[in-house]
Amino acid sequence: MQDKLNFQTIMMTLQQFWGGKGCLIWQPYYTQVGAGTMNPATVLRVLGPEPWNVAYVEPSIRPDDGRYGDNPYRMQQHYQFQVILKPDPGNPQELYLQSLEALGINPHEHDIRFVEDNWESPALGAWGLGWEVWLDGQEITQFTYFQQAGGVNLDPVSVEITYGLERIAMALQGSYNFKKIQWSPNFTYGDVNYQAEYEHSRYYFEVADVERLYEMYDLFEKEANLALDQGLVLPAHDYILKCSHTFNVLDTRGAVGVTERQSLFGRMRELSRRTAETYIAQREALGFPWLEKPNAVASSVSAEQPELPEVIKSDQAADFLLEIGTEELPAADLESAWGQLQTLVPDMLSGLRLDYKDIHVYATPRRLVVHVSDLAGKQAEVTQEVKGPPAERAYDKDGQLTPAALGFARSKGVDVKDLTVKEVDGGKYLTAVVHQPGLFTLDILPEKLVDLIAHIRFDKSMRWNASGVSFSRPIRWLAALFGTAVVPFAYAGLNANRITRGLRFSEEAEHACKDIPDYFAYLESQGILSDMQARKSVIEKQVGALLSSLKAADKIDAKLLDEVNNLVEAPTALLGNFNEEHLKLPGEVLIGVMKKHQRYFPVTEASGALMPHFITIRNGGKQHLEIVAHGNEEVIQARFSDSAFFINEDNKHSLEDFVNREDTLTFHPKLGSMLDKTKRILKLTETLCLGMGLDKEETAVAMEAAQFCKADLVSKMVIEMTALQGTIGKYYALQRGKSPAVANAIEEHYQPRNAGDQSPASQAGLVVGIADRLDSLIGLFSAGMAPSGTKDPFGLRRAAIGLVQNLINADISLDLQKYIFKASALLPVESSPKDCQDCLDFIVGRLEQILLEEGYAYDVIKAVLAAQGANPAKAAASIRELSEWVKRDDWRGTILPAYSRCVRITRTEKQRYNVSAEYFQESQEKALYEAVTAAQKNIGDSKNVNDFLTHLLPVVPAINAFFDAVLVMDEKQEIRENRLGLLQSVAFLADGVADLSKLEGF
Amino acid sequence: MQDKLNFQTIMMTLQQFWGGKGCLIWQPYYTQVGAGTMNPATVLRVLGPEPWNVAYVEPSIRPDDGRYGDNPYRMQQHYQFQVILKPDPGNPQELYLQSLEALGINPHEHDIRFVEDNWESPALGAWGLGWEVWLDGQEITQFTYFQQAGGVNLDPVSVEITYGLERIAMALQGSYNFKKIQWSPNFTYGDVNYQAEYEHSRYYFEVADVERLYEMYDLFEKEANLALDQGLVLPAHDYILKCSHTFNVLDTRGAVGVTERQSLFGRMRELSRRTAETYIAQREALGFPWLEKPNAVASSVSAEQPELPEVIKSDQAADFLLEIGTEELPAADLESAWGQLQTLVPDMLSGLRLDYKDIHVYATPRRLVVHVSDLAGKQAEVTQEVKGPPAERAYDKDGQLTPAALGFARSKGVDVKDLTVKEVDGGKYLTAVVHQPGLFTLDILPEKLVDLIAHIRFDKSMRWNASGVSFSRPIRWLAALFGTAVVPFAYAGLNANRITRGLRFSEEAEHACKDIPDYFAYLESQGILSDMQARKSVIEKQVGALLSSLKAADKIDAKLLDEVNNLVEAPTALLGNFNEEHLKLPGEVLIGVMKKHQRYFPVTEASGALMPHFITIRNGGKQHLEIVAHGNEEVIQARFSDSAFFINEDNKHSLEDFVNREDTLTFHPKLGSMLDKTKRILKLTETLCLGMGLDKEETAVAMEAAQFCKADLVSKMVIEMTALQGTIGKYYALQRGKSPAVANAIEEHYQPRNAGDQSPASQAGLVVGIADRLDSLIGLFSAGMAPSGTKDPFGLRRAAIGLVQNLINADISLDLQKYIFKASALLPVESSPKDCQDCLDFIVGRLEQILLEEGYAYDVIKAVLAAQGANPAKAAASIRELSEWVKRDDWRGTILPAYSRCVRITRTEKQRYNVSAEYFQESQEKALYEAVTAAQKNIGDSKNVNDFLTHLLPVVPAINAFFDAVLVMDEKQEIRENRLGLLQSVAFLADGVADLSKLEGF
Repeated sequence: MQDKLNFQTIMMTLQQFWGGKGCLIWQPYYTQVGAGTMNPATVLRVLGPEPWNVAYVEPSIRPDDGRYGDNPYRMQQHYQFQVILKPDPGNPQELYLQSLEALGINPHEHDIRFVEDNWESPALGAWGLGWEVWLDGQEITQFTYFQQAGGVNLDPVSVEITYGLERIAMALQGSYNFKKIQWSPNFTYGDVNYQAEYEHSRYYFEVADVERLYEMYDLFEKEANLALDQGLVLPAHDYILKCSHTFNVLDTRGAVGVTERQSLFGRMRELSRRTAETYIAQREALGFPWLEKPNAVASSVSAEQPELPEVIKSDQAADFLLEIGTEELPAADLESAWGQLQTLVPDMLSGLRLDYKDIHVYATPRRLVVHVSDLAGKQAEVTQEVKGPPAERAYDKDGQLTPAALGFARSKGVDVKDLTVKEVDGGKYLTAVVHQPGLFTLDILPEKLVDLIAHIRFDKSMRWNASGVSFSRPIRWLAALFGTAVVPFAYAGLNANRITRGLRFSEEAEHACKDIPDYFAYLESQGILSDMQARKSVIEKQVGALLSSLKAADKIDAKLLDEVNNLVEAPTALLGNFNEEHLKLPGEVLIGVMKKHQRYFPVTEASGALMPHFITIRNGGKQHLEIVAHGNEEVIQARFSDSAFFINEDNKHSLEDFVNREDTLTFHPKLGSMLDKTKRILKLTETLCLGMGLDKEETAVAMEAAQFCKADLVSKMVIEMTALQGTIGKYYALQRGKSPAVANAIEEHYQPRNAGDQSPASQAGLVVGIADRLDSLIGLFSAGMAPSGTKDPFGLRRAAIGLVQNLINADISLDLQKYIFKASALLPVESSPKDCQDCLDFIVGRLEQILLEEGYAYDVIKAVLAAQGANPAKAAASIRELSEWVKRDDWRGTILPAYSRCVRITRTEKQRYNVSAEYFQESQEKALYEAVTAAQKNIGDSKNVNDFLTHLLPVVPAINAFFDAVLVMDEKQEIRENRLGLLQSVAFLADGVADLSKLEGF
Repeated sequence: MQDKLNFQTIMMTLQQFWGGKGCLIWQPYYTQVGAGTMNPATVLRVLGPEPWNVAYVEPSIRPDDGRYGDNPYRMQQHYQFQVILKPDPGNPQELYLQSLEALGINPHEHDIRFVEDNWESPALGAWGLGWEVWLDGQEITQFTYFQQAGGVNLDPVSVEITYGLERIAMALQGSYNFKKIQWSPNFTYGDVNYQAEYEHSRYYFEVADVERLYEMYDLFEKEANLALDQGLVLPAHDYILKCSHTFNVLDTRGAVGVTERQSLFGRMRELSRRTAETYIAQREALGFPWLEKPNAVASSVSAEQPELPEVIKSDQAADFLLEIGTEELPAADLESAWGQLQTLVPDMLSGLRLDYKDIHVYATPRRLVVHVSDLAGKQAEVTQEVKGPPAERAYDKDGQLTPAALGFARSKGVDVKDLTVKEVDGGKYLTAVVHQPGLFTLDILPEKLVDLIAHIRFDKSMRWNASGVSFSRPIRWLAALFGTAVVPFAYAGLNANRITRGLRFSEEAEHACKDIPDYFAYLESQGILSDMQARKSVIEKQVGALLSSLKAADKIDAKLLDEVNNLVEAPTALLGNFNEEHLKLPGEVLIGVMKKHQRYFPVTEASGALMPHFITIRNGGKQHLEIVAHGNEEVIQARFSDSAFFINEDNKHSLEDFVNREDTLTFHPKLGSMLDKTKRILKLTETLCLGMGLDKEETAVAMEAAQFCKADLVSKMVIEMTALQGTIGKYYALQRGKSPAVANAIEEHYQPRNAGDQSPASQAGLVVGIADRLDSLIGLFSAGMAPSGTKDPFGLRRAAIGLVQNLINADISLDLQKYIFKASALLPVESSPKDCQDCLDFIVGRLEQILLEEGYAYDVIKAVLAAQGANPAKAAASIRELSEWVKRDDWRGTILPAYSRCVRITRTEKQRYNVSAEYFQESQEKALYEAVTAAQKNIGDSKNVNDFLTHLLPVVPAINAFFDAVLVMDEKQEIRENRLGLLQSVAFLADGVADLSKLEGF
């Protein structure tokens, strides 16, 4: 092989490699695709039970990645090399790593990592779990276990490997700019593709005619449906791809609104679903002919599964070790599994009656380890009395044991002469004393280990092979030792044995452990820190040392540290630098890129200002750190360039430009553009300022913020990093001379962005946020887009929660019913009274949920919300108050019963009766009347629970006295109704405050 | 290398091969293309001066080749391997043949041929000259020297090699069905692509929505123009490709009319032109940067050009040989060059004053050979008297020679004392006797050989390398011997030498000829028959032997024989068979396929019935004939299957179905569909039947034929083989129970199909043909589509010629003016009087051309057409007659002058004068009057020239007598006008017959 491959020999080498491994070599597709996945050789062939192994180049078109050829890394077209292995051959990661070696990438010189990345294609109705593969921080490959396509579950699961060929070429050739990649001996990548990058970027970003593209989308969709009506899968699929590309161009043109996106995706997903189902039906009708074919990439792994050994049992206690060897677990899953094992293991052992000294659980991305010290060799013995049939049925009339009794003895393994009759639970029964001997640990543990692993649960789990089991990522080996013996069990198609694996790319890749100390010694020799806490300390120390060497602030992001700790087995921190130029970018952007995309620790001065450095944790030792650092520096450089590109592009426009461009963003077809929405927000903000009593200055701030609150949605920076919406709005407002108050309000109107986020600090931010959310809520309810089931494509749950949370946090009394109505009046669609009510109910439902999560009692919440749900802040206050009241000693015994009697006896009455002194017959009536009248007066208009109950309290004795002395249901109607009216007055004291009948004990 | 490559290893092998030769390896394009040519890596990169060598796979989509996966050879998608070599490396054929060997095709076992095939893409404005490469009769590759793209001349020329990978795989694997091709070790081509063939065929032929596709075409075109307005070449090109694919689908759906096709093509061509020009401008603005790059596929050939030798001159006569070694010449070009050399060579030699004994010209596809026997070693000497300055200026007053005279002597190389004064041409001049010595042949011949080759002309010639010279196909070697010496000259970048080349793939591929006998001996040893006549005899004998072995009719198509004779150097006839089943197909179809596509001799019984055999002539000897025959049999089998496919598909429809479907064929946007046209033809046929006096029975036949005359245009068979239009119409009409008369008329209405073809035999066929052509002519003139310059996209010239030819052949008097008017009244567009006149003038123009080609005198034609042009048959008859008259001895001296005097003296008169006996002054007046009156009476209404002139004859003496005696211009007005009137009567005898003033000598 030549020293450095060029771009074309890279492609040919991969074809040769995978062809040699048994893959069919396929060709790029003849329609613009965003990824090789969309080639029917992947997205259709992964469906159904037939085996399929394929590899091909795919020039992939992603319009919004176009950078006019200016960014070293991002292009509107990049070349993928796509591999599908169906079914999982058992060692796909290893095959992949071999292919890197075939390309000349020496893994010992680099930091190669599998970093969690879950993949989803809304257009194809497809998703999978897997990783990005990082080479020195640079993503070179996507590696995915495909779980679903066209909305159909995949069985078997396919392994999808997608190489980013430019990235690989850059790394191989050491030139970190796509233009400089040597394509052939005489031509560079830039020679043959730069012009295309420039021209297509211009076309996609500036030129493409939006209206015509929408027309194309419609035509393509109709043709796809037409083809499907005729059962034609492939023609339909072609048109789906054309829809998808057209959508991408529209999106790049900034012509797709947040809500419209859902609709366009939904239409493609529906087509994909039909296509997938038709494809499977076709293959089924043919009898799935490829099931007959030999599997070309047959697993070398499963064939080599060792036999389970015969075990020699002993009652000697010994250490026990279980290692679940996996492909790289996501950080959160690792954390979660580690936590679960802490309880699952002791539960298992106590269920087995096995004694032990200690349990330790260790975890790295590639292994979950349970170490039990001094585990008993046998169960504790147990002697137990067991109940048999009733005595009268145990002996026949001759006093002989009946067949039932004999059967009982046999089943319990006791001699008939040891049976006795005893009184149990108040009856006489035949009983036997059963002696359970302790079973050998090696006899009982194996099947429980199967259960143990099967009980570990993950947020998202996946299938990968024919065993059908699920786990966070594939389990690839199982080591289980009891002392020196293997604990024989099988799971996920694997037999447990004594072989473990070391750090990736280490010299001694596998090791047969003679015993448990040997296991730990081997891990140590590999540099693996399996103890999470120990590993974390090492990272902290290393990062701290680097920070102090830079005289930087000694601040380590704890959340990031936890994540990073779960990404490596053998951590080594290293320092990288970036061009100071980039410090001009907004700090949020830099930090966002470093933390989120690269998991780097940002470095700041004591003042908090960013420094042009970052710290990353590689997996492995200190060898070739300069290569690894260099790769990482190139990556972050490119990413920052990308952000600079966006901001520079945006800086060509004023805020007013942005606002005008909002009309190209459809909010929802029935509700108009983002510009229309902005205008509604503006009007609603005005109304709210008035209603909430903002002063003139605050009102002016709110109005200006409302005007520009959605401006950044059309900025390239936000289109690229949606999470920065609002933040970028703030920056751009400040840059363009707006006041800090306005800028902050723009950012704040999105708050809270998620659970746990803060509420707006300013009145202006608060008001604009309320206006925005009310408009979305009643707007989408009126447009028939209310959330249903688990579906909430427009995030209305989050909108409602934010709305409620902000009102509560700011303690602002606001009648949502009234403002929903006002917001509905601004809409371009008609809102029915039912829409308004449904919308309000929906918001109140979220309020209820928040309060439940805050720990308030279910009944208390119900009682208050029934009366005050439309005013969240007031309702919350009342719930706080009522919660205190129900804790009173006299609540259940005195206050509630008294009030309850008044309610219960009157609640079937159809009308409210007048109370007139003339009909009073007893003094207790009059006394009650006076007490109630006083309470009414004291409560006044207050809807506070405290006011109500405080003033109810003096009425309670009068109520009790009344009931003691008076028979409400007098024969005379006028007297009866007068008494009922009196009790109604008591009941109505809670009107608008709470419905106490919803309380427990009422 | 493994024994038999599978489909994927074939692709990888070609990548390796061409990558190794210095080509950049590129990828298939991301938009449906009909051929690898359309990939921008070809169609744009061939523009401009920069070198470019590239190779790639291209899955090519040709909707109308879809056969639902049923045909063994034809698919809607086939895989091309595309190679571009720019500039020509000098040995592209040899490189190509090496690549076949790399694939494992042993050329010794096969018949590999380069068969003329010129390529044109109307959508891309591109064309080139080259070949199909045949492997045992099977087309496996297109090999083209690209001359133009986007309407731009290419310099340098690119060599385009396009492999048909399925064909190659079939040949390699010996399984002649695409479904059985082994794609990978486990999968066949059918496994992975059969379903696509079936589904896309259904979509393209049956399902695609025509209206939506037209909308797409428009949208794509608009986006292309938009992109070009912004100078964006590649986005524009993508949309051109989308237009092109959309067009192809529309065409496959049968939704594109003959005339509409032109418009859709024109729109794409215009886009291609803009794209090409913008691309070149872009590259130019960059300074054509790749000119700096080394040429990766540098010619190994030009580097090896031998030095021109020093020649040793001798005056000895010797044989001379010139061999122009070429890549395979097209048959017609070979024939033409052979003919030209027969005169060019003697002209050259006599111009050089070189004596010789004999000249023989030989020709094969790869060589043009001139053999001159006993060519003089020196020119003949010449002694010549040369004229100098006039005598009076040759000597000064002192009798001394002037400087002018001295200069003359010097220039002629004569001594001053040899100058003499002589009388020449009636004046006295200084003269010298100049003696021209004979120069050595080897001194004067070389530069004339350059001229000789440069003077060979071809219908279509091409450039290929930097020499810029043109020829039918590239010249690759030049051998030139005079005796044993090389005649040193250089042409087309080549130096002449003594090396010739043998039969392709022979062991001794090259041979250095020590002398001319050695040359011929070498050719003979190679089996090459360079003598055309000898070669033809051998073929005839071989074919005759095979025919007689089959007891078949001893009939050999002479035209085909001539063609085939020009396709081989070493002919060997071989017999192939096909399935008798196919004999059910119409004979025209079978013969058409055999002759036109495959150049096979059909085999018939004595009765004329086809037999299931064919004879083909391979190039080469008798080795491995069974492999060659087998390949050819598979090819013809597939081709016949294809025809059967079409006919079977068509048989699902009635003639009425076809007629109804004509409405999907646009004739011209302004003139409606083919159905509209058919309705007009029907009405016009009715009118013509009446006007031409057809009887009831003939009229009924004509009307029925008119109704169905265009029905076969929507049949799949005719869509596939347009040349069979009418013929298929006849077959389908007969099959569906129409009378033979109607069926024949349907076929005949297209006659004559081309120059030399016959006219319809039946009145019905004639009438329908006239109706059809009149409708097209006046229709398209009225729609503004009259031919202009060399442009005649609708074939109106041919229509007019056919119309006129038929009327003449059938001798039918028809007033075209009248019927043009009647036809115009049926059109959906308005025809102006000018349209009608222009249309008539156009037809008369074609008539004039036909008559000129028939050899009639220009003036005779003009004279008659001026009077009778609108009635072609009458006009033709008159021209025949007049031609005889003008040959008479008394024509120029007597008849014409007499008549002419009458015309000339009266032709400026503004009015026609009455003649009255009362004004006669002389007896000659009266005599003339009586003679004219008698002539008028005898001529009557006849417009025949003979009638006119026969009766003019007796008037001639009276005319002469009149002029001898009478002064026309009498002083008295009434006498003068009476005499003028009398002469006018003579002049007007020719009215409506001819305008004799247009005759020479008038």
